[in-house]
Amino acid sequence: MNKKVDQAGRFLRYSVPIHLINLITAILPNCTPTVAIRGFLMRPFFKKCGKGFRIASGVIINNPERIEIGDNVYIAHNNWINGVGGLRIDANVRIGPMSVIVTSQHAFENGKMTSGYIPAPVRIHAGCWIASKAVITDGVEIGADSLVAAGAVVTKSFPAQSKIGGVPAKLIGKPGDA
Amino acid sequence: MNKKVDQAGRFLRYSVPIHLINLITAILPNCTPTVAIRGFLMRPFFKKCGKGFRIASGVIINNPERIEIGDNVYIAHNNWINGVGGLRIDANVRIGPMSVIVTSQHAFENGKMTSGYIPAPVRIHAGCWIASKAVITDGVEIGADSLVAAGAVVTKSFPAQSKIGGVPAKLIGKPGDA
Amino acid sequence: MNKKVDQAGRFLRYSVPIHLINLITAILPNCTPTVAIRGFLMRPFFKKCGKGFRIASGVIINNPERIEIGDNVYIAHNNWINGVGGLRIDANVRIGPMSVIVTSQHAFENGKMTSGYIPAPVRIHAGCWIASKAVITDGVEIGADSLVAAGAVVTKSFPAQSKIGGVPAKLIGKPGDA
Repeated sequence: MNKKVDQAGRFLRYSVPIHLINLITAILPNCTPTVAIRGFLMRPFFKKCGKGFRIASGVIINNPERIEIGDNVYIAHNNWINGVGGLRIDANVRIGPMSVIVTSQHAFENGKMTSGYIPAPVRIHAGCWIASKAVITDGVEIGADSLVAAGAVVTKSFPAQSKIGGVPAKLIGKPGDA
Repeated sequence: MNKKVDQAGRFLRYSVPIHLINLITAILPNCTPTVAIRGFLMRPFFKKCGKGFRIASGVIINNPERIEIGDNVYIAHNNWINGVGGLRIDANVRIGPMSVIVTSQHAFENGKMTSGYIPAPVRIHAGCWIASKAVITDGVEIGADSLVAAGAVVTKSFPAQSKIGGVPAKLIGKPGDA
Repeated sequence: MNKKVDQAGRFLRYSVPIHLINLITAILPNCTPTVAIRGFLMRPFFKKCGKGFRIASGVIINNPERIEIGDNVYIAHNNWINGVGGLRIDANVRIGPMSVIVTSQHAFENGKMTSGYIPAPVRIHAGCWIASKAVITDGVEIGADSLVAAGAVVTKSFPAQSKIGGVPAKLIGKPGDA
């Protein structure tokens, strides 16, 4: 099958419905039923998506056909999430407003940016809390029950039960520390 | 009175009107009259809101019934503001685009995130300038005439006339320093 | 000519069309043709704008009549860009989602914020990649083929081929470094 046709088919099957659900549900006020309804409607348009998915308004989702989401995941307003390099978000993860998850980066040759991309998958294990305005970059794996502090830019992987903060992000303790 | 009914009543009285004002005024172009009209329309739907309130488009406001706003406050585009733990923004405060103010955090027990929240109020004293993309976390108090630099993540309180920057934010000088 | 009338004329000539293009094209799903169509429609409403301009949805653009854009520039979702102090973005620059470019700051007198602004132009030279959620502040010049890392807050100028990161941003290497 022609690659362009295949790409267009995936776009119509996954990305367009998510866009339309975002447009239509934008008229609903922000509350528990709204985020549950939006999540329920979007579920069929990811590679996989578990039960109890909740998502607030204004989230940009690129390449949802490469994104796997576990049960009871919550994503807050205005996140920007790109699944192009492969993304897995496990059960009970919560992501705060205005966070960014990228799964690729622009390629460079001889100090010049090319038109190419280098993809690298991201995995966020179960029970993590990604606080507001964090960035998770390509190739990163965050262990279970970790806390990514507000505004952190995570450029490398961390083990389970890490509390991570700063730009670039470092280990700063355990979740639940005062 | 039943707690759920009470909560639904507050939602209809405060949050729904603010949502509708945001939806309808989104068709107006961004300019001085628009932010003043939007602010004027929203005034009755906070716990308290002073004169001369101006607000740009796309601001998410949760629990406005717990937010007190002084005179001549300006809030720029796409802020995300949660009043659940109590929020007071005093007169002449200006908040730049894409900032976040949170007044609660997720609770942890034995290293696991629970479904509970720990609320803690935030107060921003008169004359502060919160520059773009700052985060103010739960329990923080920022003294009068302070400047929170772009991208700062403020996790503790600071006295009046502080210039605050970094992730996490530290005292970096006085407002008006070169 | 009266200054207020002049200002209103510029607003109708530049800002209003860009606002309307944003509103109308928001119904299109996010894909390569959409960002190209939106960019093509917006081109006449900047001071200057080269060929192949592409721009994603939700970008706030203030004072476009003071913004010059080179060929083949790409601007991702939900950026906030203020041209008031003068802004030049050269050819082949790419700007990631939720970045902020400011070209002025609030003035202070005797430790108090006034209603005045201090403008200062920004220039981003050809081939730069501004990654997601960066902030470029007033008066900054970024040399050609530089990479501004995600979440960086750039408060001073850097020469060509710089890799810049952190809050505030420092030189951290060369673009294309591992």
